[in-house]
Amino acid sequence: MTASFADRLIQRARRLAHPLCVGMDPHLGRIPPLFRRGQMQPGDPETAHAVGDFCAAVLERVAEQSVAIKPQSAFFEQLGPAGVEVLAGLLADGRRRGVPMILDAKRGDIGSTAAGYAAAYVAKDAPMAADALTINPYLGADSLEPFLEESARSGAGLFVLVRTSNPGGADLQALEVEGQPLYLRVADLVARAAADRVGPETGWSSIGAVVGATRPDEAPAVRERIPNGLFLVPGYGAQGGSARDALRGFVPGPGGVLEGGVVSSSRGILFPEGSDTDDATAWERAIDAAVERAVSELGEAARA
Amino acid sequence: MTASFADRLIQRARRLAHPLCVGMDPHLGRIPPLFRRGQMQPGDPETAHAVGDFCAAVLERVAEQSVAIKPQSAFFEQLGPAGVEVLAGLLADGRRRGVPMILDAKRGDIGSTAAGYAAAYVAKDAPMAADALTINPYLGADSLEPFLEESARSGAGLFVLVRTSNPGGADLQALEVEGQPLYLRVADLVARAAADRVGPETGWSSIGAVVGATRPDEAPAVRERIPNGLFLVPGYGAQGGSARDALRGFVPGPGGVLEGGVVSSSRGILFPEGSDTDDATAWERAIDAAVERAVSELGEAARA
Repeated sequence: MTASFADRLIQRARRLAHPLCVGMDPHLGRIPPLFRRGQMQPGDPETAHAVGDFCAAVLERVAEQSVAIKPQSAFFEQLGPAGVEVLAGLLADGRRRGVPMILDAKRGDIGSTAAGYAAAYVAKDAPMAADALTINPYLGADSLEPFLEESARSGAGLFVLVRTSNPGGADLQALEVEGQPLYLRVADLVARAAADRVGPETGWSSIGAVVGATRPDEAPAVRERIPNGLFLVPGYGAQGGSARDALRGFVPGPGGVLEGGVVSSSRGILFPEGSDTDDATAWERAIDAAVERAVSELGEAARA
Repeated sequence: MTASFADRLIQRARRLAHPLCVGMDPHLGRIPPLFRRGQMQPGDPETAHAVGDFCAAVLERVAEQSVAIKPQSAFFEQLGPAGVEVLAGLLADGRRRGVPMILDAKRGDIGSTAAGYAAAYVAKDAPMAADALTINPYLGADSLEPFLEESARSGAGLFVLVRTSNPGGADLQALEVEGQPLYLRVADLVARAAADRVGPETGWSSIGAVVGATRPDEAPAVRERIPNGLFLVPGYGAQGGSARDALRGFVPGPGGVLEGGVVSSSRGILFPEGSDTDDATAWERAIDAAVERAVSELGEAARA
């Protein structure tokens, strides 16, 4: 197996013929009765076990059909050390199953502190090793360095926040700097790093960008700056983006827009209609149907 | 006791007559022989215990003389769930002793995810409750909202990254936007939030800024934008900044530059000359001397 995160991700996307990444955002208030235990409140260890059981059950149902799984660190951290233990178990479980695990933690710091985060999540034998990590660029190019160095050793991927699709995303990211939006400056930082980390088998780089583009021209502009970096596109499904919108920055090949990264759906897969039940069979059916729907929509949009 | 973080911090700074915050950055390679156990490597639970013992011992020696203590989350996260458990214990220990605990975690995300981080660290009964948290503004004003809402309920403080002093800090923060550097736009975001959260007893706001100013005019410019927000100034001591430099954005009162926030020193206090020993008495003497030196330098600079 190649050590390059990008090679593994793209080869998996080719095999599955869609770019679906399942976002693991276990909202406490939405966990179905089938899994609820304890107070379902932050800080309660019983709640952490309930979240662990829920995530393990989702993982089992979706792992084979997903290009990647993206746990959202905040939902585990809010459960305290017991929640972090659950996250560690989930990351290990996913990696055992061979599905790329992207930890969405948006870490960012400088020097030895950034190296500490890299040692936590990016290093080969990290205690919470993920296949890729999301990071925040506000502290500048030298804050990315420790992550880049560690990921070059381990082969892990990094997704740098470039453009986020929340309304406030524009507050800083869209500000005009020397005639272009700030996020394209960030894209240039990413592009320089991406050039060094191209996977030998697919030509895609393990250094990529989070691009939740809100206007039709934004994702293609980022793609132009980072021609071979993977995109992590959040916000498909429950957050309102269409499959076609989500794929705007992907790269058309002979068979359509089949490559360029992954598109993440969280609530649409984790909490679909019919899943708020204590009936295990009904729950499984609801999750399966949600995955099937997302795979089919994204697969069709990619082939179009 | 007032629920306002700013009131508690400033009243403590007045009583101690200096602005020293001790940064708790337990670099594994620097932990003295007195505390070393296990492999002293990320992910090793024995190492987590060693770090816990070291931090507890430092806390005991410095708590009474420090205005605040600032644990750096990365150094605990790199030890895995056992390290996060140690961090939770350190936060609780400090708060029991009544010293304000500022968790340096630089979190930043949107919507329910940001609310998850707030539930983890900012909420009153959070499993890892800190007195204040550092946060990252790259995702914009609406990404700060969930933190602001939770901190309004708990009284906790927030320090938003505005200007960092690393060389790469300028890559984005110093870019010119409509005739002024980006970091002053961020300062404006902070100022709007700070206006609502002014402590009734001191007039200082619990919403503040991380300002690691590198040029003489930078910190005063941020202060002009955020007249009543606390500053968290890193980089004093081992990182090279002088006491006078660190206090540039503070506010002169009748007795000198005595208010405006805290100045953080980490390595200079945690790993001073003479502390790399297995002799408990020698170690205590080295830490005490380091605290005394920092208190005296910062106190003098503040009175000047």
